[in-house]
Amino acid sequence: MTYCVGLLLNEGVVMLSDTRTNAGLDNISIFSKMFTVENPDERALVLMTAGNLAITQTVWNLLQAGVWLNGVSQKLTDVPDMFAAAQLVGAAVRQVASMDSAALASQGLGFDCSLLLGGQIAGGAPRLFLVYSAGNFIEATDDTPFLQIGEHKYGKPILDRVLTPRTTLVEGVALTLISMDSTIRSNLSVALPLDLAVIRLDQMRICTRRRITADDPYYRTIHDGWSNALRDAYLALPRPDFVLG
Amino acid sequence: MTYCVGLLLNEGVVMLSDTRTNAGLDNISIFSKMFTVENPDERALVLMTAGNLAITQTVWNLLQAGVWLNGVSQKLTDVPDMFAAAQLVGAAVRQVASMDSAALASQGLGFDCSLLLGGQIAGGAPRLFLVYSAGNFIEATDDTPFLQIGEHKYGKPILDRVLTPRTTLVEGVALTLISMDSTIRSNLSVALPLDLAVIRLDQMRICTRRRITADDPYYRTIHDGWSNALRDAYLALPRPDFVLG
Repeated sequence: MTYCVGLLLNEGVVMLSDTRTNAGLDNISIFSKMFTVENPDERALVLMTAGNLAITQTVWNLLQAGVWLNGVSQKLTDVPDMFAAAQLVGAAVRQVASMDSAALASQGLGFDCSLLLGGQIAGGAPRLFLVYSAGNFIEATDDTPFLQIGEHKYGKPILDRVLTPRTTLVEGVALTLISMDSTIRSNLSVALPLDLAVIRLDQMRICTRRRITADDPYYRTIHDGWSNALRDAYLALPRPDFVLG
Repeated sequence: MTYCVGLLLNEGVVMLSDTRTNAGLDNISIFSKMFTVENPDERALVLMTAGNLAITQTVWNLLQAGVWLNGVSQKLTDVPDMFAAAQLVGAAVRQVASMDSAALASQGLGFDCSLLLGGQIAGGAPRLFLVYSAGNFIEATDDTPFLQIGEHKYGKPILDRVLTPRTTLVEGVALTLISMDSTIRSNLSVALPLDLAVIRLDQMRICTRRRITADDPYYRTIHDGWSNALRDAYLALPRPDFVLG
């Protein structure tokens, strides 16, 4: 499995992914699920992927080679805006579906992928999209400033309770790491190392790109600190007075 | 959907279930998913159900009417021990499967149910089982003293981090309510009111049985307190120093 989370904040975009892939529990590997496109001062995009690795790697390869959209072969390096970028990723997904779906179905497999695309292209605001395996997509908004793919449930409660568009980038990085740590603690199919990318508003470049390993001092602080904080929070709550007997 | 959680503690058993059922998002109802069998001083059992309501209600009806196990029609009121109780629930599930699976399959539906059975019968220790839709089952142990059915992921991180067999019954009730509250906050298919049952070691009776509604003072304390505690815990963690730009 996979866990990727993207935040769309007033200060910019935070993207975090794990790197675990598995073909059965006995075949576990590390693959980066984060891909970046950058033309400093003009555009910065981050794509994260979940689902069948053969599908998502092919999507990324097609995007680099060029995908037909609106009658023209385009790349993420030259689409005019973020909406077109999301359409292009969707078109790439549909192209892979048209090539692979029948063969996958013959093996009893579905066409399974989902992608998060975040970034900013000069002339437009930062945007964050979730592209489904049908190639259609939704967009993060002020009401729901985060999107997740993969094993999203373990790490959702903290985001539901704390995140707003006014959360700063630095706070957003801490929150995504807490959300990821909750997922890793409870689900074997999500694991370190992590890939982090941060895009600050109107800078049109990736201001932070970091591979976070198990011995990363800040990740250790979050990992140990959050466990202790949860325990302390639970200990500080009152106990019920109605348990009889 | 549903969320039910059971704890097997040194002090006894805690069982908590929500009450939401839905046949599509536009057809939401309240059904208790908790059933109890009690013969004070001799046995106390609690059964909680998830999955297709038609299946789980039929399982409960069959258990009350008597189910064939080892050549004899038995009920939860007369099985000799907790292992036989789990076998009986499994036999009831298999009986429903034999009646309904083909008709469900003809509608494109799977045979979907799971059950938690916890309790104690005189002469044996308290035990907690998870019965699958195939009628087979697993049992909670000291290493993993809790079992969940339904929407289990949101509420698992806190249990993974805090729960041990030495957790007291009173603390266990608080923990199950935190786990449930995290689930309710993040998933529409799980909702109040809740059903709580507590069985204290060697008492062979249900010492606490409580319907918890949205205006229950203790639930409000947990709900508000946990949200605030999570926010405070997050605020108390250090921020990363590597976010550039």
